[in-house]
Amino acid sequence: MKKTKHPKVRRRGPGEAAVLERIERVAARTGTRSSRVRLGIGDDTALFRAASGSEQILTSDWFLEGSHFLRYEHPADAVGWKCLARAVSDVAAMGGVPRCFLLSLALPASHTGLWLDQFLGGLRRAAKRFGCALAGGDTTRRKDILINVTVVGEVRTGTAVLRSGARPGDMLLTSGRLGEAELGLRLIRESKRRANSRDPVLRKHLSPEPRLALGRWLAERHLASAMMDLSDGLSTDLPRLCAASGVGARIEATKLSRVRVPKSGRRRNDDSLEMALHGGDDYELLFTVPRLKLKRIPRSFHGLPLTAIGEITKQRALLLIEESGREVSLPNRGWDPFRQKKM
Amino acid sequence: MKKTKHPKVRRRGPGEAAVLERIERVAARTGTRSSRVRLGIGDDTALFRAASGSEQILTSDWFLEGSHFLRYEHPADAVGWKCLARAVSDVAAMGGVPRCFLLSLALPASHTGLWLDQFLGGLRRAAKRFGCALAGGDTTRRKDILINVTVVGEVRTGTAVLRSGARPGDMLLTSGRLGEAELGLRLIRESKRRANSRDPVLRKHLSPEPRLALGRWLAERHLASAMMDLSDGLSTDLPRLCAASGVGARIEATKLSRVRVPKSGRRRNDDSLEMALHGGDDYELLFTVPRLKLKRIPRSFHGLPLTAIGEITKQRALLLIEESGREVSLPNRGWDPFRQKKM
Repeated sequence: MKKTKHPKVRRRGPGEAAVLERIERVAARTGTRSSRVRLGIGDDTALFRAASGSEQILTSDWFLEGSHFLRYEHPADAVGWKCLARAVSDVAAMGGVPRCFLLSLALPASHTGLWLDQFLGGLRRAAKRFGCALAGGDTTRRKDILINVTVVGEVRTGTAVLRSGARPGDMLLTSGRLGEAELGLRLIRESKRRANSRDPVLRKHLSPEPRLALGRWLAERHLASAMMDLSDGLSTDLPRLCAASGVGARIEATKLSRVRVPKSGRRRNDDSLEMALHGGDDYELLFTVPRLKLKRIPRSFHGLPLTAIGEITKQRALLLIEESGREVSLPNRGWDPFRQKKM
Repeated sequence: MKKTKHPKVRRRGPGEAAVLERIERVAARTGTRSSRVRLGIGDDTALFRAASGSEQILTSDWFLEGSHFLRYEHPADAVGWKCLARAVSDVAAMGGVPRCFLLSLALPASHTGLWLDQFLGGLRRAAKRFGCALAGGDTTRRKDILINVTVVGEVRTGTAVLRSGARPGDMLLTSGRLGEAELGLRLIRESKRRANSRDPVLRKHLSPEPRLALGRWLAERHLASAMMDLSDGLSTDLPRLCAASGVGARIEATKLSRVRVPKSGRRRNDDSLEMALHGGDDYELLFTVPRLKLKRIPRSFHGLPLTAIGEITKQRALLLIEESGREVSLPNRGWDPFRQKKM
């Protein structure tokens, strides 16, 4: 039904000043002393006071209509939450703490009313949850909704966990269950209606939780030798970690902690292994642990399962031991924006 | 002629890894020790080491095809230069020094060849010129060319010049000649061909120079009470400075340092005052100086003219004294993306 998919919106929006004023109100409600923001929205730039003994973490992420979300299927509050969550996830992957962020937002005049309010609502919830204050950014008008988020975080000097530290013999672990976000995306694409933000099966896709506490715990205790977040799918991200470290890896299909596919899903022939290997957007952590430290890793961290899925090898190949026991080359079939369209 | 406007491009571009590799090569050539980047492209995030005794300047800027530049009229190297220059200009406006930047780039597969090379060439020249290292970012494929640049700069604690410090009686000054970028834009829009990056009349529009040395000099000597850069036009930016300071201003048309319009321009009835008041993209500095410090401001700073154009008033109005001597209200007619289309 076209009417519900394209709700009435006002055609002529307010000027830039009015849009900025509403963003500024959100900024005022996300700032805390720990955000270290000295000067926020309203000047040429934001001013940040770095903590001594720390390094500053810098990361930018696109979140674009049609590429990363759908205007009519994804609720505006979920768009607001997720655009920040995915950038904050990169801070978690370094073992750091998010401090503040810049929001660059381009949107149609028709979306400067209700849509913007709901978007800012989700963004504000995420900012408070992650302890990450809105410090500035840029707004403009555009036919498509375009978002770019830059997060500034901090990590105690010498504790950041890079992708390049994995050594042969290290065990390879993941947090959470892989493929849950991919399942949510599939359900949303099939239903073609605006998704319900509160549906638990969609939660991982709509409002992912960056693994900040886990990342920090692994970093501060020097337990992880290498770490990254899973944003494009295990089969695409694992090769990146291995390339940075100059190693290979062997993972076992039976050991993967996978999405639980509901019955309706099995009827559609969804394959949980397929989703766990190649599905993107999980924002779980992929990390390596030297064998001698493995006993210090619990089975779950504050309720989040931690699973050893394989090991790092000297030989630079990426191998998958299938459920049958057969060893095959792991195909790289996660998301590459230059080779495929996501949505 | 369609052929020259739409040069042949290869339809299928390389994958994301290949695009990233070329961006990474540029990053390697822009890094210096003063950039303070400890870890650049290739990990989840960049790592930056803040200088002690400094505040960190954070700013993000959109640079979008159709809104801020035209794919076939603007040379790719000028797009690369300008996307960085305009964000760095915000650092100049605080009196700071740029350190590093994140590049978020979305482009069609057809533009990952020659266009990307030329774009990166201009970007690299700008990065070296401004002492601002490419530290990271995000790339994706998109029908339109979308750019977002985040610059991190630094300023000695206590010296940043805000918009909010102007006081009644302060003199109002600008650097350079206003309206030059607007004239360049008009010439490009009329010719409808790809512009020549070396044409001196177009230089201000195609490759603006952020006023870093001037901004820093004014800040370190505590000469400016308020400062911002002119990006959307004097008639739009001056109200912002006044609103932040809780003051008004009176400027004199005869005192403005304006673009020199070439003869062909006069034939087209271009109005230099119009362009100086309302034209955007000049990236000159607008700043206020307490009267007692005015004698310390030279007429030109390393060849760049500095011009007193009016004064700050207690009364919160924005007034223009026309060439006839008549005092009128200054209309706000610079760029507001939510009210008008730029290109």
